[in-house]
Amino acid sequence: MKIQKPVYYGDYLQLPKILNAQETESQKYGKEAHDETLFIIIHQTYELWFKQIIHEINSVKSLMDKDFIPSLDLSTIVARLERVGKIQQILIEQIRIMETMTSLDFMEFRDYLVPASGFQSLQFRIIEAALGIKPHHRMEVEKQFFTSRLKAEDKQQLEKVESELSIFELMESWLERMPFSDFDDFDFWGEYSIAVEKMLAQDEKIISTNPSLSQEIKNLELKNLALTKNTFKTLLDANLFEQSRKEGKVRLSQKAMLSVIFIYLYRDYPALQMPFKLLNALVEIDENFTTWRYRHAIMVQRILGTKIGTGGSSGHDYLKATTERNRAFIDLFNMATFLIPKSSIPKLPSIIKDQLDIVYDSFRS
Amino acid sequence: MKIQKPVYYGDYLQLPKILNAQETESQKYGKEAHDETLFIIIHQTYELWFKQIIHEINSVKSLMDKDFIPSLDLSTIVARLERVGKIQQILIEQIRIMETMTSLDFMEFRDYLVPASGFQSLQFRIIEAALGIKPHHRMEVEKQFFTSRLKAEDKQQLEKVESELSIFELMESWLERMPFSDFDDFDFWGEYSIAVEKMLAQDEKIISTNPSLSQEIKNLELKNLALTKNTFKTLLDANLFEQSRKEGKVRLSQKAMLSVIFIYLYRDYPALQMPFKLLNALVEIDENFTTWRYRHAIMVQRILGTKIGTGGSSGHDYLKATTERNRAFIDLFNMATFLIPKSSIPKLPSIIKDQLDIVYDSFRS
Amino acid sequence: MKIQKPVYYGDYLQLPKILNAQETESQKYGKEAHDETLFIIIHQTYELWFKQIIHEINSVKSLMDKDFIPSLDLSTIVARLERVGKIQQILIEQIRIMETMTSLDFMEFRDYLVPASGFQSLQFRIIEAALGIKPHHRMEVEKQFFTSRLKAEDKQQLEKVESELSIFELMESWLERMPFSDFDDFDFWGEYSIAVEKMLAQDEKIISTNPSLSQEIKNLELKNLALTKNTFKTLLDANLFEQSRKEGKVRLSQKAMLSVIFIYLYRDYPALQMPFKLLNALVEIDENFTTWRYRHAIMVQRILGTKIGTGGSSGHDYLKATTERNRAFIDLFNMATFLIPKSSIPKLPSIIKDQLDIVYDSFRS
Amino acid sequence: MKIQKPVYYGDYLQLPKILNAQETESQKYGKEAHDETLFIIIHQTYELWFKQIIHEINSVKSLMDKDFIPSLDLSTIVARLERVGKIQQILIEQIRIMETMTSLDFMEFRDYLVPASGFQSLQFRIIEAALGIKPHHRMEVEKQFFTSRLKAEDKQQLEKVESELSIFELMESWLERMPFSDFDDFDFWGEYSIAVEKMLAQDEKIISTNPSLSQEIKNLELKNLALTKNTFKTLLDANLFEQSRKEGKVRLSQKAMLSVIFIYLYRDYPALQMPFKLLNALVEIDENFTTWRYRHAIMVQRILGTKIGTGGSSGHDYLKATTERNRAFIDLFNMATFLIPKSSIPKLPSIIKDQLDIVYDSFRS
Repeated sequence: MKIQKPVYYGDYLQLPKILNAQETESQKYGKEAHDETLFIIIHQTYELWFKQIIHEINSVKSLMDKDFIPSLDLSTIVARLERVGKIQQILIEQIRIMETMTSLDFMEFRDYLVPASGFQSLQFRIIEAALGIKPHHRMEVEKQFFTSRLKAEDKQQLEKVESELSIFELMESWLERMPFSDFDDFDFWGEYSIAVEKMLAQDEKIISTNPSLSQEIKNLELKNLALTKNTFKTLLDANLFEQSRKEGKVRLSQKAMLSVIFIYLYRDYPALQMPFKLLNALVEIDENFTTWRYRHAIMVQRILGTKIGTGGSSGHDYLKATTERNRAFIDLFNMATFLIPKSSIPKLPSIIKDQLDIVYDSFRS
Repeated sequence: MKIQKPVYYGDYLQLPKILNAQETESQKYGKEAHDETLFIIIHQTYELWFKQIIHEINSVKSLMDKDFIPSLDLSTIVARLERVGKIQQILIEQIRIMETMTSLDFMEFRDYLVPASGFQSLQFRIIEAALGIKPHHRMEVEKQFFTSRLKAEDKQQLEKVESELSIFELMESWLERMPFSDFDDFDFWGEYSIAVEKMLAQDEKIISTNPSLSQEIKNLELKNLALTKNTFKTLLDANLFEQSRKEGKVRLSQKAMLSVIFIYLYRDYPALQMPFKLLNALVEIDENFTTWRYRHAIMVQRILGTKIGTGGSSGHDYLKATTERNRAFIDLFNMATFLIPKSSIPKLPSIIKDQLDIVYDSFRS
Repeated sequence: MKIQKPVYYGDYLQLPKILNAQETESQKYGKEAHDETLFIIIHQTYELWFKQIIHEINSVKSLMDKDFIPSLDLSTIVARLERVGKIQQILIEQIRIMETMTSLDFMEFRDYLVPASGFQSLQFRIIEAALGIKPHHRMEVEKQFFTSRLKAEDKQQLEKVESELSIFELMESWLERMPFSDFDDFDFWGEYSIAVEKMLAQDEKIISTNPSLSQEIKNLELKNLALTKNTFKTLLDANLFEQSRKEGKVRLSQKAMLSVIFIYLYRDYPALQMPFKLLNALVEIDENFTTWRYRHAIMVQRILGTKIGTGGSSGHDYLKATTERNRAFIDLFNMATFLIPKSSIPKLPSIIKDQLDIVYDSFRS
Repeated sequence: MKIQKPVYYGDYLQLPKILNAQETESQKYGKEAHDETLFIIIHQTYELWFKQIIHEINSVKSLMDKDFIPSLDLSTIVARLERVGKIQQILIEQIRIMETMTSLDFMEFRDYLVPASGFQSLQFRIIEAALGIKPHHRMEVEKQFFTSRLKAEDKQQLEKVESELSIFELMESWLERMPFSDFDDFDFWGEYSIAVEKMLAQDEKIISTNPSLSQEIKNLELKNLALTKNTFKTLLDANLFEQSRKEGKVRLSQKAMLSVIFIYLYRDYPALQMPFKLLNALVEIDENFTTWRYRHAIMVQRILGTKIGTGGSSGHDYLKATTERNRAFIDLFNMATFLIPKSSIPKLPSIIKDQLDIVYDSFRS
């Protein structure tokens, strides 16, 4: 290796550029607002972290966009998705810094920023799109709120990402390639059905004989239970499932869904540890953005009340409305419904078990 | 001082009692579930912390239940309420420990616990009541969910606390005793009105001339603005305010409300620093319980999906419904609406300013 | 399943016992100190969590105390050790609650507690012992500080745990059983040596040609490099290694050490993912206790300064001295020294690679 | 107000500059290392936050650089210093992101960065200097490590800050201007001395009669107690104090020190609440940087072991050595030594008490 030339810290990080990119609007109006610098810098750190998240997500997309994903690649994918989760936690915790700005101080420069708005963060929309949020998943009001505000070239860039395969879609194909929905000589899903029915019967008994529930609550619970039963029925019937998918109640295909359940149930086998971690990392990412939106909405409420924000609109209601939406992996989040007690899980035949296992500490003997 | 007898760590903490209070139900059925111990211990730590919170709240109540609160007592009150906030943060973070229990593991002992339920935590209800949640604030479904489940003696204890003056009520009297709603020779609220009107006019202009908002959104925003204007009108009109209070839109009296606004605007004066911190600590307490309920609901969703919990009911929906409710200090949370830019705040006449200030570093000269 | 009888929340958690175990010493002297209740309750929560940690560690010990550890058990072990890590994080964060107690308030009841001391926490010593801290690892002053203070029956209980196989020893046997120190037809450690030498030669060049280092610093660094070289030499020479172990510089046997290095280098293979996570979880546990001791020492310094604590001694210096000691898995903590760039890691022959891998998404075809 | 022109989010934040400032060295060598982007971006966020900290510190310096600090300014100072504390917490927590980079991955590009080093962060040195770390406070090795590495213009900039009044010095003058070291008709320090002597006599008795301490430990503790006594003697004797200061054992002047003690003892009075918070915020800042250095050192140890870093030196030992040093406000950190039980604090005469107090809720009557 031939070292090119000595590297200097400040040059390597391009600090002259980075540290000279804070120009307050308030000073243009002759009245520098002290806290505007904080407002700029915190948003710049957000955008830097968004760039890093995109860097990770893009690498994950290209590692997943193959007919076969080798196990070493799978490890890399999981590590990078987990890193995204760590970054998101900082995005959430950073809100505490923003909260040191009082309403009174923010109002000093808010008017100068109109109509700029966080809704114009192109990178954030790109992240959502790359994870799997397509335009048809968004609420109408949401689209209006931000699409109209993006510059033409930004809009184009977003549309490009939306037209590509998202992580959701790549994950779905990978799950569909797995051999868990139909085993040759082993009626796994039949045995699973029996275990489920036993569990639900037990639940029904628990509700009916519970002395501390009023009849009204009991009826409510029994109605819920009937819904849960129906959910299982739908899961195991290809036609019903497809119908449910068309209605938007579920995003994953049935084949992929069954693979997910199998992975969740047998996650402790070496062959399924990484697949499970991958799914888990994706739920975490959704969950972190949900928390971030929630905390963000609360902060806006505390600083603005019902007053309008820099974008010329009272973002709070909108922010709250999208808090729980925009989960690309909502099906994974809802997975607990399909899990059953450890002791009721069907025993796997040796032939299958052996393929999932590695006898890790004596494999050479 | 005469030392009584040497103290031994384990005896002082009564560890034989504390550490022998974990008996799993699963082992009674002959099949010890490893994770049930965690389930018991985490709930026991929650209850210990609830006891500590009640200890703090009770001392705050008795310090506030006076016609005059000396400033040293005010400091003590704030310190104890802030401690409650720190405890709550641990309650929230502890959920991460509970999350290490998988759905599969929980299902192993869930059935044995029926119909016990976290809704039966008497101490938690006492805390809510002592802060200011009265039975008529609760949702109908909520009352049904837990009141019917409490033992008679527990119900009685709760009713006793509900019948006493809560922190909300003590705070309200304290705010009403303050002299900020009507100054002799200074029309503060008149000047405040003028500043507000200027601000709202500016907001209207910002919305109307915003090139990046569609007409539809503009109309929506102008409608919101009209609502905000109305909120201000109500604030400054005794009759309208009382009407609004009767409709449950606001809990505080007008006199108390105006004191809050004054404190928020002039919080930096020595005389108002502690009052502001007291209000802030109360908002924090509400906020922390909101976050706790939210995180709790998410955890339940992840472990149970739509399945029922130990109480024989699917707690998730109920938990979500109460997440944002049960804020005793909701009026303080919504205060930002009434704040205006620092530079628009009315200048106080010297006579008032002097009473709020302390010339702290040369007061003896 | 026959449900025995309905369970009530408060009875299940034995709350009457738990919530009636707080008796302040100060009130015995006729002068209740408000903050003593906090002091008691926080220590009780610590002890409850210690009990939970012991519950996890004991189960891990019995799962590891076998000639062969099946992979499903390995997953369970890792999950439980990771749970210990999560509990420790709460132990650390709880210190923030203790920090709400001022020096002035603590001094109000400190004298009444003499000579009780946190050094008398039997459970904490049991945890250290079960992880792998034997009496000969402790500093002389440390032994004096706490052993003399334990009651006879407590001392006995601790000695029993110290005489049993610790997690350190069980981990060591498990590592020694692995087949990585000597492959039949593949000179792995020879290839590793070559990679190491290349890396060290590069390091030497970097130091020598670094224009921004003074000659003095360069000499210092070259001396350090020589030490590092020696460390590698020792690693690969059975006699030198054994010598180093006798001198207490390293705790693990050479065979176990080589397995660790192999696992760290090839951690991404399915067969080694769980073994790596196990090692990592153990480092985390050590690290968390180190942080806990550090934060604890700082808190004591802030509350007491150089004054004595309840145990009648100025704990701060002692606490600081043990902060970095009492790491049972110090060898794992120091592992980074032996790692080399990803691209320099020896390529494994297919025969070995195949045994480490699982072709997870098409294994039935 | 005349709005200049509509602001666009991306332009306002100068994102084209910020997001095009990541150029990896590894790609110049033809072999892009995926993780180098993370390495660059995390350092850029650090530098952005350093800029924000400097922005806050500079404003605090100019607010404090006056003969008299009005109470509203004091509130502003405290708010900004507390904000610095919040930022530091993020700096600490961000380390968790860096920890997602494995040793193997870092080694892939480490060599390309030589001899750049975090020691070359000019902004970090400026922060230390502005707080109060002068060149003569630094260890010899530390100066060599970084001064020699700074570019000439950077060195100059640092020297400029070092030559200006630091926050430490401004705080000291402010404390010296306070009237607490000598009251006209009230021998405060005499009464304080009596309380201290009583406390120390009690401590001596506690140690001597403690049945659970060995004679050896007792002697050690009594020696420590003698040192503590001496510390108090020095505190109250102008000559001894000055001597101690010359020896570098203490940085503050005696007059300032006495003010600090007075503030700590009577912190709950309205007049002293903000001064106390100011001192507390400064201790927090020191403490946070200490934690940050510690966590940083641990991370480096985990990634590099005894291998050299990008600066061509094994930073770990150096990092550890400076962890506890470079506290500008060490005297405040050690303050607990001088605090006494709340009930022993001398009662203030009304004339003094009235000046410290504000009868906040009836001051107009």
